[in-house]
Amino acid sequence: MKKLINSPETVLDEALAGIAAAHPELRVDAKNKVITRADGTIRAGGVALISGGGSGHEPLHGGFVGPGMLTAACPGEVFTSPVPDQMLAAAQAVDSGAGVLFIVKNYTGDVLNFQMAAELAAEEGIMVKTVVVDDDVAVQDSTWTAGRRGTGATVFVEKIVGALAEQGADLAAVAEMGRRVNACSRSFAVALTACTAPAAGKPGFDLPEDEMEVGVGIHGEPGRRRDKLRPAREIVATALEAILADQPLAAGDETIVMVNGLGATPLLELYVVFNEVATALTGQNVVIARSLVGNYVTSLDMAGVSITVCKADADMLALWDAPVNTPALRWGT
Amino acid sequence: MKKLINSPETVLDEALAGIAAAHPELRVDAKNKVITRADGTIRAGGVALISGGGSGHEPLHGGFVGPGMLTAACPGEVFTSPVPDQMLAAAQAVDSGAGVLFIVKNYTGDVLNFQMAAELAAEEGIMVKTVVVDDDVAVQDSTWTAGRRGTGATVFVEKIVGALAEQGADLAAVAEMGRRVNACSRSFAVALTACTAPAAGKPGFDLPEDEMEVGVGIHGEPGRRRDKLRPAREIVATALEAILADQPLAAGDETIVMVNGLGATPLLELYVVFNEVATALTGQNVVIARSLVGNYVTSLDMAGVSITVCKADADMLALWDAPVNTPALRWGT
Repeated sequence: MKKLINSPETVLDEALAGIAAAHPELRVDAKNKVITRADGTIRAGGVALISGGGSGHEPLHGGFVGPGMLTAACPGEVFTSPVPDQMLAAAQAVDSGAGVLFIVKNYTGDVLNFQMAAELAAEEGIMVKTVVVDDDVAVQDSTWTAGRRGTGATVFVEKIVGALAEQGADLAAVAEMGRRVNACSRSFAVALTACTAPAAGKPGFDLPEDEMEVGVGIHGEPGRRRDKLRPAREIVATALEAILADQPLAAGDETIVMVNGLGATPLLELYVVFNEVATALTGQNVVIARSLVGNYVTSLDMAGVSITVCKADADMLALWDAPVNTPALRWGT
Repeated sequence: MKKLINSPETVLDEALAGIAAAHPELRVDAKNKVITRADGTIRAGGVALISGGGSGHEPLHGGFVGPGMLTAACPGEVFTSPVPDQMLAAAQAVDSGAGVLFIVKNYTGDVLNFQMAAELAAEEGIMVKTVVVDDDVAVQDSTWTAGRRGTGATVFVEKIVGALAEQGADLAAVAEMGRRVNACSRSFAVALTACTAPAAGKPGFDLPEDEMEVGVGIHGEPGRRRDKLRPAREIVATALEAILADQPLAAGDETIVMVNGLGATPLLELYVVFNEVATALTGQNVVIARSLVGNYVTSLDMAGVSITVCKADADMLALWDAPVNTPALRWGT
């Protein structure tokens, strides 16, 4: 295992210390492992947005804390759900009285822990609603998931709902928008290599030099099948076929598209992939109204790519364009 | 070789098409391979800033084109200098009459080609000055370099000089600031794995599973030595020792620090490294006034990190804080 760490046991604590040192606009509660905005809640009297999950997917979620996006993030150990006490501490830290929205990727551990935290928060008098993100069309159930896995659409939900909360919408409206964004988003990922979790010390699965995992999960969960490595054009065709089979798009439909690196893929290759996605979608007269190309939801050092397509309405596009100021996503401020 | 490409021969053209599709605020001249701002020169009547170099280091340089930073970028093939005709086409496209600054990383091919382009531009009546960036303290000469290699400080030069040009400074002042920033910046890199150029099809060098290349160059050029893989704390100590031996810092000195991933290093690990850098520098009462943590000057799929420290004066810090709006660096706008 080749990693720039001191020890597997201290990775999360030391990374959190690094985040605190690099981003004075964030506050890191090292004891509770909660990242919040140094300037407090999302807006005075506004709904707070809390997300979280296992570490190893950076910049998700801590990199999306800031004005116009998350109010707080709860990072677990690598590929391990955070615990309810973390989420409760986050809710207590940021609730203004207007309530808290939990944004949860659909993995069994995350769902159970956020559910328990919601009950604990309710006992403390904090209103909580939850949006579960389950956009990955590759497989129905998976190693750590009942139903679909949650992946790239999390970024879309956090950005769009963050803008809505910033505008002063109430908890019900914010939760409803989160569900709408998830419902119109689909993702599909392909891995060229497995990733190595620090505590495991070896790759999560074996992948021969000439093969790829088609439909991989962000922890290296199995996808639909193994296949020989194909040219980017064919890989994109496979991914878009799966995405569009689940959510057809018509000519004139507007989309937000993310081509996301899984950790070890050069940006040069991500642009090659984005070119194929753009060629395929515009060939069907589907409009790519907004896009992201880069590393947003990673799987440690996995080589590969995920593609997320959100069929966005005018409300979502306007909220997408609203100012955001976080370490990993920043515009209009 | 596992890459998300269609063929090694078409990588650059297709990546440029992807950049054009993803960033409507940029204009890509596919024939001349020049990336400019869709809205024209850096400011009406202002000095234009042009950089470039081999591809494979994304987001450098195309990702830094935009208001407050570069006016144009000339990407060569992977790890191959762009040609003088590209640079001339860029200069002709963006010169407002106030002249052009070439920002050149110190590799022999880049230096010769930009020099030839400067002569061609002069024949066309375009004023040109050149800043050569040579911040890498690891080795004096290298495979492709006479003198020191240019690496992470390029980002600092492009950002700070871009802000100065945006303010309306003339060519001489802009060039002088570029030299000042380079003169007070130092870098050092460590590779855990070699990178694979698409045309080569195999890693650029062999590195045993338990070793690292200490002082590696951004094309995989040899560093100072091979060493056993060490904990992050020791790697950072080695890098900072080399940097500070060349440019001592005193208590109270203000710095801009970049912890830069070489392509395949998880952001989680970069934060662990930044924590060590911050601990070491603040332990000497050196102030990290500004910082960047992420992938800014990559080496395709190389695992590893470079550390760049700029001893910044008040002018530089003010210019650093000025608005910038590019795909890879964006704030204040």
